[in-house]
Amino acid sequence: MSEFVYGHWAVMETMRAGRRKIDHLMVADSAEEKGTLKDILAEARKRNVKIQRSPRRILDDMAGGANHQSIVARVGNYPFADVEDALSLAQERNEKPFLLILDLLKDPQNVGVLLRVAEAVGVHGVIIQERRSVGVTPAVVNASAGAVEYLNVIQVSNLVNTMKMLKEENIWMVGFEAGPDVPPIDRTDLNIAIAIVLGSEGEGMRRLVRDTCDMTLTLPMRGHVASLNVATAGSIALYTAWQARGWQGWR
Amino acid sequence: MSEFVYGHWAVMETMRAGRRKIDHLMVADSAEEKGTLKDILAEARKRNVKIQRSPRRILDDMAGGANHQSIVARVGNYPFADVEDALSLAQERNEKPFLLILDLLKDPQNVGVLLRVAEAVGVHGVIIQERRSVGVTPAVVNASAGAVEYLNVIQVSNLVNTMKMLKEENIWMVGFEAGPDVPPIDRTDLNIAIAIVLGSEGEGMRRLVRDTCDMTLTLPMRGHVASLNVATAGSIALYTAWQARGWQGWR
Repeated sequence: MSEFVYGHWAVMETMRAGRRKIDHLMVADSAEEKGTLKDILAEARKRNVKIQRSPRRILDDMAGGANHQSIVARVGNYPFADVEDALSLAQERNEKPFLLILDLLKDPQNVGVLLRVAEAVGVHGVIIQERRSVGVTPAVVNASAGAVEYLNVIQVSNLVNTMKMLKEENIWMVGFEAGPDVPPIDRTDLNIAIAIVLGSEGEGMRRLVRDTCDMTLTLPMRGHVASLNVATAGSIALYTAWQARGWQGWR
Repeated sequence: MSEFVYGHWAVMETMRAGRRKIDHLMVADSAEEKGTLKDILAEARKRNVKIQRSPRRILDDMAGGANHQSIVARVGNYPFADVEDALSLAQERNEKPFLLILDLLKDPQNVGVLLRVAEAVGVHGVIIQERRSVGVTPAVVNASAGAVEYLNVIQVSNLVNTMKMLKEENIWMVGFEAGPDVPPIDRTDLNIAIAIVLGSEGEGMRRLVRDTCDMTLTLPMRGHVASLNVATAGSIALYTAWQARGWQGWR
């Protein structure tokens, strides 16, 4: 049990998703058993997960000062998927592949928000590079409200090679970036086999990643502030692509 | 000079927008003058703003532990607008009113993200309630990347009364909420005189605010996780409304 998750929804969804072994829950000794915490503990008892009361400062230390909402779970390693899992899922659902590629994002909050949206719109797989980008850390699981526990997250050693391989599967690589000469998001029919490619905070896509894209699109902006946060821009891109698919899989 | 702002873009845009008096900048004594910080100090010198080197721990204290990026500015009070300013701006631009109403949001990060998007899509005014919701705090200015310095932000004592008044101006109150019986966002033409109404984190809209809406809409979701963060949902709503206006004011 080398990993842990913290926060209400991170812990709840890790249990519900059932993909990781749960060793035990640690609950701050001062926490009252009510509200969502009560629901979490009920879920744990139903699943015979050991619950252990612990001094709050131990939870504080584990969460590195983040808001753990009085609950931390000791869990098995995050179950990474591979590209084939994502493509199989698309095939099973009889849908055109719908992927998200994150190029060296650094901020767990941004990655968590994007994973939460990816899960909400039915993305088949999220591809990140192993080195130099944030992985599926406890902060990311928390920021995704546990959504990452249901997703195919794929770590690859070389993003560009993976993109080239996906292009051979007839999946379009569509990068998003700011810029006056980039066509706006609604100028292209996004109801295609697609991977949405997002660059890192501040830096954008690396040159080679950008050059490997089949096209780049932008979100229009009319104000004084010249850019949007990558989590905001990516969320809008994901919803636009899903809307182009007619909200496939909804209701 | 009773207020301050911190962080690169918050300080830069507060200077550029020019709506607040800037008393002086405080720069952490150990900070090197390069990159964006260098640009900020050049901007300050151009405007004859006093620059003062200060111990980093003083900046840390002022920012309450937040990441101030080595820069804090002592500034005049935030210049709140009123409803008439927002409606006049719409008229000047010859556009149908486009407003954002935030019902008791608590998280400065969420409010900052929403203000940044509101500025990007040309919202004429953002209305918040004076009490029980986060105001335009240094954390909000920072999270908005300074965008709030260009916006009409309106504090009112009673949100419902203001909504009723706006309805008499033929502005549609369109609330966003999750729920299986709520029609999806693309089922309505949003190219109308509109106020987008968002409820607070966790709680949603208050009953009376919801009842004052002319309609409510939802963002479809197909995954296991049952909701999106209000900043994400609101950002998508704002972009959808602006797209319905044909990206008015862009390029």
